[in-house]
Amino acid sequence: MKIRERGIKIGRLPVGTKNCITDVGGVKVGHVTLDYPIEGDDYACTGVTTILPHNGNLFKEKVTGASYVLNGFGKTIGLVQVQELGVIESPIMLTNTFGVPAVTQGTLEYMLAENPEIGDETGTINIVVGECNDSRLNSIRRMPVKPEHAMEAIKKASDDIAEEGAIGAGKGMVCFGYKGGIGSSSRIIRSGSATFTIGCLVLSNFGNKEELLNWRFSSDLEPSVPSHPEPADGSIILVMATDAPLSSRQLLRVAKRCGIGLGRTGSHFSHGSGDIVIAFSTADKISHSTDEMFETRTQLREDHPVMNELFAGAAEAAEEAILNSLSQAATTKGRNGNVVYAYPFDS
Amino acid sequence: MKIRERGIKIGRLPVGTKNCITDVGGVKVGHVTLDYPIEGDDYACTGVTTILPHNGNLFKEKVTGASYVLNGFGKTIGLVQVQELGVIESPIMLTNTFGVPAVTQGTLEYMLAENPEIGDETGTINIVVGECNDSRLNSIRRMPVKPEHAMEAIKKASDDIAEEGAIGAGKGMVCFGYKGGIGSSSRIIRSGSATFTIGCLVLSNFGNKEELLNWRFSSDLEPSVPSHPEPADGSIILVMATDAPLSSRQLLRVAKRCGIGLGRTGSHFSHGSGDIVIAFSTADKISHSTDEMFETRTQLREDHPVMNELFAGAAEAAEEAILNSLSQAATTKGRNGNVVYAYPFDS
Amino acid sequence: MKIRERGIKIGRLPVGTKNCITDVGGVKVGHVTLDYPIEGDDYACTGVTTILPHNGNLFKEKVTGASYVLNGFGKTIGLVQVQELGVIESPIMLTNTFGVPAVTQGTLEYMLAENPEIGDETGTINIVVGECNDSRLNSIRRMPVKPEHAMEAIKKASDDIAEEGAIGAGKGMVCFGYKGGIGSSSRIIRSGSATFTIGCLVLSNFGNKEELLNWRFSSDLEPSVPSHPEPADGSIILVMATDAPLSSRQLLRVAKRCGIGLGRTGSHFSHGSGDIVIAFSTADKISHSTDEMFETRTQLREDHPVMNELFAGAAEAAEEAILNSLSQAATTKGRNGNVVYAYPFDS
Amino acid sequence: MKIRERGIKIGRLPVGTKNCITDVGGVKVGHVTLDYPIEGDDYACTGVTTILPHNGNLFKEKVTGASYVLNGFGKTIGLVQVQELGVIESPIMLTNTFGVPAVTQGTLEYMLAENPEIGDETGTINIVVGECNDSRLNSIRRMPVKPEHAMEAIKKASDDIAEEGAIGAGKGMVCFGYKGGIGSSSRIIRSGSATFTIGCLVLSNFGNKEELLNWRFSSDLEPSVPSHPEPADGSIILVMATDAPLSSRQLLRVAKRCGIGLGRTGSHFSHGSGDIVIAFSTADKISHSTDEMFETRTQLREDHPVMNELFAGAAEAAEEAILNSLSQAATTKGRNGNVVYAYPFDS
Repeated sequence: MKIRERGIKIGRLPVGTKNCITDVGGVKVGHVTLDYPIEGDDYACTGVTTILPHNGNLFKEKVTGASYVLNGFGKTIGLVQVQELGVIESPIMLTNTFGVPAVTQGTLEYMLAENPEIGDETGTINIVVGECNDSRLNSIRRMPVKPEHAMEAIKKASDDIAEEGAIGAGKGMVCFGYKGGIGSSSRIIRSGSATFTIGCLVLSNFGNKEELLNWRFSSDLEPSVPSHPEPADGSIILVMATDAPLSSRQLLRVAKRCGIGLGRTGSHFSHGSGDIVIAFSTADKISHSTDEMFETRTQLREDHPVMNELFAGAAEAAEEAILNSLSQAATTKGRNGNVVYAYPFDS
Repeated sequence: MKIRERGIKIGRLPVGTKNCITDVGGVKVGHVTLDYPIEGDDYACTGVTTILPHNGNLFKEKVTGASYVLNGFGKTIGLVQVQELGVIESPIMLTNTFGVPAVTQGTLEYMLAENPEIGDETGTINIVVGECNDSRLNSIRRMPVKPEHAMEAIKKASDDIAEEGAIGAGKGMVCFGYKGGIGSSSRIIRSGSATFTIGCLVLSNFGNKEELLNWRFSSDLEPSVPSHPEPADGSIILVMATDAPLSSRQLLRVAKRCGIGLGRTGSHFSHGSGDIVIAFSTADKISHSTDEMFETRTQLREDHPVMNELFAGAAEAAEEAILNSLSQAATTKGRNGNVVYAYPFDS
Repeated sequence: MKIRERGIKIGRLPVGTKNCITDVGGVKVGHVTLDYPIEGDDYACTGVTTILPHNGNLFKEKVTGASYVLNGFGKTIGLVQVQELGVIESPIMLTNTFGVPAVTQGTLEYMLAENPEIGDETGTINIVVGECNDSRLNSIRRMPVKPEHAMEAIKKASDDIAEEGAIGAGKGMVCFGYKGGIGSSSRIIRSGSATFTIGCLVLSNFGNKEELLNWRFSSDLEPSVPSHPEPADGSIILVMATDAPLSSRQLLRVAKRCGIGLGRTGSHFSHGSGDIVIAFSTADKISHSTDEMFETRTQLREDHPVMNELFAGAAEAAEEAILNSLSQAATTKGRNGNVVYAYPFDS
Repeated sequence: MKIRERGIKIGRLPVGTKNCITDVGGVKVGHVTLDYPIEGDDYACTGVTTILPHNGNLFKEKVTGASYVLNGFGKTIGLVQVQELGVIESPIMLTNTFGVPAVTQGTLEYMLAENPEIGDETGTINIVVGECNDSRLNSIRRMPVKPEHAMEAIKKASDDIAEEGAIGAGKGMVCFGYKGGIGSSSRIIRSGSATFTIGCLVLSNFGNKEELLNWRFSSDLEPSVPSHPEPADGSIILVMATDAPLSSRQLLRVAKRCGIGLGRTGSHFSHGSGDIVIAFSTADKISHSTDEMFETRTQLREDHPVMNELFAGAAEAAEEAILNSLSQAATTKGRNGNVVYAYPFDS
């Protein structure tokens, strides 16, 4: 159940039809979940999630991109080039920390198969992979995630409402000491005759029970169900999408506001947390190559009031996506017999 | 009245004796307030506030410093050098936007008088001045702030509990459409036998009524008293002090968390806002010159749990300082007959 | 004499007609030089230089801007907003370190007089002022630079070839232990039917004799004329202009390459140096206000080979501008009877 | 032959005994070179190079680290955490662009085997891998680099003078249109009774013939031997080591100066180039975990003149390391029958 179905409303902006990042036209999400005993107390409780900015060939038609590091205790790859060039040219992949090389390998192979010229007649490709550490439930050292899981997630991606909670890369994640993982939300911004959508999908794996600002959805400030007794450290990857036409500089400004939403849940961007925003705008498709010297872009005038609405939308969608990850995740059992419980919502 | 006296408690950490930035040992605050008619509809409704990191000669004994730009639509000066060297060597001054040159001039003259060798036998000095635009109440174009007001503020500075609200640089500021200005708060972090204090003083001048998350202190979600009908744009300078021994990199990490507190009040770091954190640690006094090649510093191990407590303390103190600026500010009349009302708290 | 007239050719790209930043259409430069005894051994040996990105009202028609800090031991103001918004909306002013408040004040007054709505019906204005410390020759503590000198420099600005050497803000500056100050150079980039100009103007005040890579213009690796016996610390402000249509992110990338030119002269971006690039593109005039929600911009495709030519142009123009500041500056006498000699070129 | 043996002297500081990054005590370098036909015109002409900051367990005893992106068209991984925490806790690995996932995987497996607690009782580990695109000579799409090559390179690492040129990760690299690859150099800085060493090892793969400033080592400004007819785009990874005791902020300042050396070779940090500095100081070993709340560090006072010497040392060592990569590399034949020639030095 989404947090909104529990009667909790975050912010003042209207949500999209699916209240999901897939409300942004063309965006697709795919999950592969691994959930099986390995041997002894080891258990695969992990997976891969992909977000495709559009349905076409992402290398040939790139999107405007930006990233922002709220706290950098993390192993996300691909950000150096996103920050320099302001484009994203691959699926955005999420997985566990030690699954990053395998997922990078699988995504690279997928993109190379789709684009025979990469590494031959043209240059290379920048793969973006975010991660959190799911070692509380997943035997991360056993590295159950393989390159083919990345390819499978990409192939399975759809623009339906994304599944949330203990699924895909979120399978083994823990949020505020309770079961977290994947969550998503969206906002609609209307101004004059223009309508923009902004969506957020998170992989949540941070915080402890004491940090959670739960007064909105629980009469029980000290939940009866035990939380996982761990420090607040962990991580969160926030993927933000919009169809608003923004330059990479403007997109970065919007992306930064996802941190406001994260802070409002109670997080303090803990020392040991990789809290990272990865953002894209689908408004422009940027061709990989052309002989043209110039390109013409239409973008928002950022002194228009709609810019502040986008800022608010980013904060609201991020906060609600995190709460959705908590609201949608079921109690999960993993390695060493560890159990992480679903948060005991009142309703 | 501080917000805490209205029954509103922010966060879970204990506050210092004064619940003020001056709880950090040695820190002093001084205000000069200008409040007089000029001519016609013009009115001086502005001032200067200073924060002195310690009682001595700041040029000769510098403190570790850091700054973080949440949103850069602002004219704060001095940050380039703070970011490069990680030290602050002057009083931190706050004033209105067009008062920056005068306050810089006055502070410079003060420091030159105190240090005859600057610009003669030794190098120059880096002055730090933050600002917000108080043109709703103050005839900012008339530039009532003069260099001598900066010097006067420095001389008047004391380590008493700082006056808050419509005073000093806060005289003409507007926060969430109501009267804002100066606010301060502090937190105590205890760990083993160690005790650290973290304090925040803000100059608040941002937001509109719709943004304010006022459910905590008002049963009236739509306040009866009219707010100032302006966009959310404005600015906030957050000055953070601590006595915890931190490297400049560590201090920057703590300073960033002030943005969490700002976000929790309802701000979205609006486009037209200069939202800037300026931070210092009083733990080390760094001599201006010496023949030594090496220096030895004791600093926190940042994987110690106390680091996360400092993060929480920064967020809590910043949020409460902002609410104090709102809680302490009285209805103020300024230029063109404009009136900005005090927020109508329930209690 | 420009360095090129001494037979020294820097780089491979053609230079503009004036070999000056004013080769970029519309750019104007103005100097005010102060050169008089004060009292005792004190002497005013300083000034103000302004660079106007275009001939119109800079607040109403802003230009794309960027800045890059090579080394941040400096007091340049205005960069926070340039970095956030990617625009410059004022003249770019250069002066000595302690002249910054006066020059800011004078420039602010000039812009307020030109735009009665600033600080009244519309917001504020961001002034950009760069500085170097000329205290070797100038009695900087006596603060001979006044607000009116800033206004005078702006009014005197012209698009003629800029005067170089010991003039304007460059009057008292020292470069590699010899007389430096103002220097300028330009490059022309042709690609297909397109022609772009890139220009650089520097205020040079850095380095010592040992650092200077002088093999290109001196058979005398150990110059006979004495250099000023000071450490390499100092500063350089590099102002870069182009008419190439660039986004602020692209402009920043070009601006960074000015540091290559600085390094090629022999500088190591010394610890005590404020080495800062301030850049603008005149291709777009960005209106201060409009009701439009969208704007359309034509910009370079940065994978076009012309981008690399702009990079080379920035490096070459910066290096040659620095050498011009050395080549054009005459021996100058200042405070305490100090003399800084012109570099003894072979020709 | 090193460039110095050709009579070319870069800079004024003395070089270390080996004129290699291994002059910094404890630093080790290892190479694995792949050089064999695959099938048809495909050819493996690539490899792996590792730099070990010290001889012990890098996860348990981390070193101070920093990184600086000169131009970000690159896929280097691990920088997010290095920038946040200022430590390096793994070998620094170099390989080709598409070898990054395999090398990350292999290095991760190596570190996990050495540290059974990672991902079980303690957190994760941050692997640092830099890359250049060697697709001119290497069939990069065939991905000849495997995880075991990373492990082998680490095991083979020694503190002897590192082999240079077409070896390890440098096997297939092209520099200024001629054969490049691995190069290294060092500098000794003496001040009073203190002696510091600074070393640089590069993986060079950038530039075209026209850019190279070859007047120092060639009477033939237009070399007779054909250069590879490619654009200037490519990449360079510069690994910098020192035993000077520096905070991570200070280390970053020194690391930035490697870009000066790169610029002096003729590079303009081309658009399509990933030009990245990765730096560490061996002066402190930072334990992974402890119960201590405080740590005490001795570091340089950065206003001591030795800081500028370190800056100069970084620039000189980087420049000479690049020229060594050119000087040491032999003509190499690779995929599709492509040949990249050794630069035709005069001597």
